Amino acid sequence: MSRFIDRLLEASQRANSLVCVGLDVDQMALPRCVKEQPDSIFAFNKAIIDATVDLVCAYKPNLAFYEALGPSGWDALARTVAYIPSRVVTIADAKRGDIGHTAKAYAKAIFEIYGFDAVTANPYLGRDSVQPFLDYADRGVFVLCKTSNPGSSEFQNLEVRAQGEDAEPRPLYEVVAWRVREWNSKGNCGLVVGATYATELAAVRRIAPELPILVPGVGAQAGDLEAAVQNGVDERGELAVVNSSRAIIYASSGDDFSQAARKAASALRDAINRARARRTEEGAS
Amino acid sequence: MSRFIDRLLEASQRANSLVCVGLDVDQMALPRCVKEQPDSIFAFNKAIIDATVDLVCAYKPNLAFYEALGPSGWDALARTVAYIPSRVVTIADAKRGDIGHTAKAYAKAIFEIYGFDAVTANPYLGRDSVQPFLDYADRGVFVLCKTSNPGSSEFQNLEVRAQGEDAEPRPLYEVVAWRVREWNSKGNCGLVVGATYATELAAVRRIAPELPILVPGVGAQAGDLEAAVQNGVDERGELAVVNSSRAIIYASSGDDFSQAARKAASALRDAINRARARRTEEGAS
Repeated sequence: MSRFIDRLLEASQRANSLVCVGLDVDQMALPRCVKEQPDSIFAFNKAIIDATVDLVCAYKPNLAFYEALGPSGWDALARTVAYIPSRVVTIADAKRGDIGHTAKAYAKAIFEIYGFDAVTANPYLGRDSVQPFLDYADRGVFVLCKTSNPGSSEFQNLEVRAQGEDAEPRPLYEVVAWRVREWNSKGNCGLVVGATYATELAAVRRIAPELPILVPGVGAQAGDLEAAVQNGVDERGELAVVNSSRAIIYASSGDDFSQAARKAASALRDAINRARARRTEEGAS
Repeated sequence: MSRFIDRLLEASQRANSLVCVGLDVDQMALPRCVKEQPDSIFAFNKAIIDATVDLVCAYKPNLAFYEALGPSGWDALARTVAYIPSRVVTIADAKRGDIGHTAKAYAKAIFEIYGFDAVTANPYLGRDSVQPFLDYADRGVFVLCKTSNPGSSEFQNLEVRAQGEDAEPRPLYEVVAWRVREWNSKGNCGLVVGATYATELAAVRRIAPELPILVPGVGAQAGDLEAAVQNGVDERGELAVVNSSRAIIYASSGDDFSQAARKAASALRDAINRARARRTEEGAS
């Protein structure tokens, strides 16, 4: 049984790509040529996956969009995860956080029923709420640290004085990063930091040099890609997972939507790789 | 369109009850007489609802347990919510927290597709992540404040210095309570505070005298009921929603499970009402 972090590295090295495609399907936004199909959500995902699978290290469906489709949405989700080749990492963007007994049910759903390789989790309830996910030694758990939304500073940037660390007050998201690093005994922890907060991303990378960081917020949310890559990768230029959803899957609303998605994913991969190259050159000089 | 807080008050006054029954079904824990039925989850919930509906103000299914059943679980959930009479409040214990565009999909799922009256939400991402739920003026949003689990202090009790409030550092959960009070322009905000933390519950009630507080953690989690009620209700002895799940729905694993659930719910209602009476007597003296 290989460690999650090794599987993630392997996936990104095989495709020479840090790109993660967010499969955030919205019935209303589907291209007309797909919308009319009986099994439109799965058909759309399948076309996107077929067009991009060699260009990405991961796919990340956000469960909200499947939940919003009613019971049939979960069926489309299950089929989508099953369709993704095992060499590519699947991340359930679920942001779950609940007490132990209930978190266990979520972990069972996400890792066993739907078969995801990784999940996103909310830290607010503390370690015991994340533990049921961490107990799956071969699955990854990306804990929300500094999220990409405009209002994320309201609580995440509050200055806190945490016991057991140094005496200086530090923002809450940094405390979360320190703690998650301590939880990483099985090589299956990661962090989520939005591309929209490049300074915070650099701070988190310094705190946790060895953790994978899931970086959403490029594309539609307009985070600065160059800064996000430079600040998000580790010293080898690895271990950032850069997610783009709408800018790839809805790159075109016409019949050419899957080719347009491929083009957008390819351009993103190349732009990221150029930024990685500059980062590692700088690191070496 | 009546405000959520008025509907909640009406529901609890009609039944003279602050009891909320947590419909946290677990296929493995079902009584044998139900387990063998083809539609066992809904059949179980229906029997529990029929046996307790006049004794409670609310039902609270935790979505984790339905998600863990695969796609068919959501069908059982939809039928359960539809079966609960509209005079009783339905709370989706979902603890959702995601960025605006995604939170909107969750709100649509929970309020429109499944038709819940209220939801639980996680504050970590900030107000803009809760706003899509708050936009439904007639639905309730209970924001996690101090959760019932043993590890909840790890982040929730960190001392923070919040700008715009007074200069004294205060625990994060108190800052959350202050903020949620500010979000309550439509009378649809509430807070979640575990019965296992009676002192924190009293502090939150002082900060937010007018908000409903959902209080999980009596029963199986062994919070002190007397202290939870005394500290959780408002000055009229209202606006606490005291949840018990396993201690009611699994009160018996035999053929008498629904009668046993009724007996347990009735005993909890009476014990809560005795504590409320003592509280309001003390308040008056």
